[in-house]
Amino acid sequence: MAAKITYTIQDVLGDLSVAANGWKKELTYTSWNNRDEKFDLRSWNPDHSAMTKGITLTKEEILKLKDILNDIDFDKY
Amino acid sequence: MAAKITYTIQDVLGDLSVAANGWKKELTYTSWNNRDEKFDLRSWNPDHSAMTKGITLTKEEILKLKDILNDIDFDKY
Repeated sequence: MAAKITYTIQDVLGDLSVAANGWKKELTYTSWNNRDEKFDLRSWNPDHSAMTKGITLTKEEILKLKDILNDIDFDKY
Repeated sequence: MAAKITYTIQDVLGDLSVAANGWKKELTYTSWNNRDEKFDLRSWNPDHSAMTKGITLTKEEILKLKDILNDIDFDKY
C-alpha cells in the first residue's frame, strides 16, 4: 500500500555527512503531512525529492539531546 | 520476511523523552548485528527488548550534530 506523503522543509540546519552518491544526512526543520514542523534527522538526495527513514524530534527532545551531547566525553568512543 | 536482528546496547547515554506507555526515546551506543558500535537514536521499551526504527550516527556525524545544535538559535523555533 502506498500512501501519499507531503513535506515542507522549512530550514536545513546542517549536514552531518555526505555519501558518495551525493545523499546528505541532514538536520532539518520539516513539516510532514501538513502537521507542525519538527526537527528531523535523515538522509536526503541532493534536490530533497527522496529521503530515507529517519527520526523526528520535538523542540524539547532536541534541547535534551543538545544537553546530553555536551555532557558526553567523546574521547571514550 | 523476518530477519534475525541482534544488538548489544553498550551505553545508554541519555533519555530524550518518555512516552505514556513507558517507551523512551534514547541516545545509546549500540552494536547492531555484531558490527562496530554506533551512536543510535530511537525509542525503546522499558527492558530494551523492543524498539522503533531510528537512526544511527558515526562518531564523526554525532560530533558534527553537536556543533550544529550549539550554533542554532532555538528561540526561533
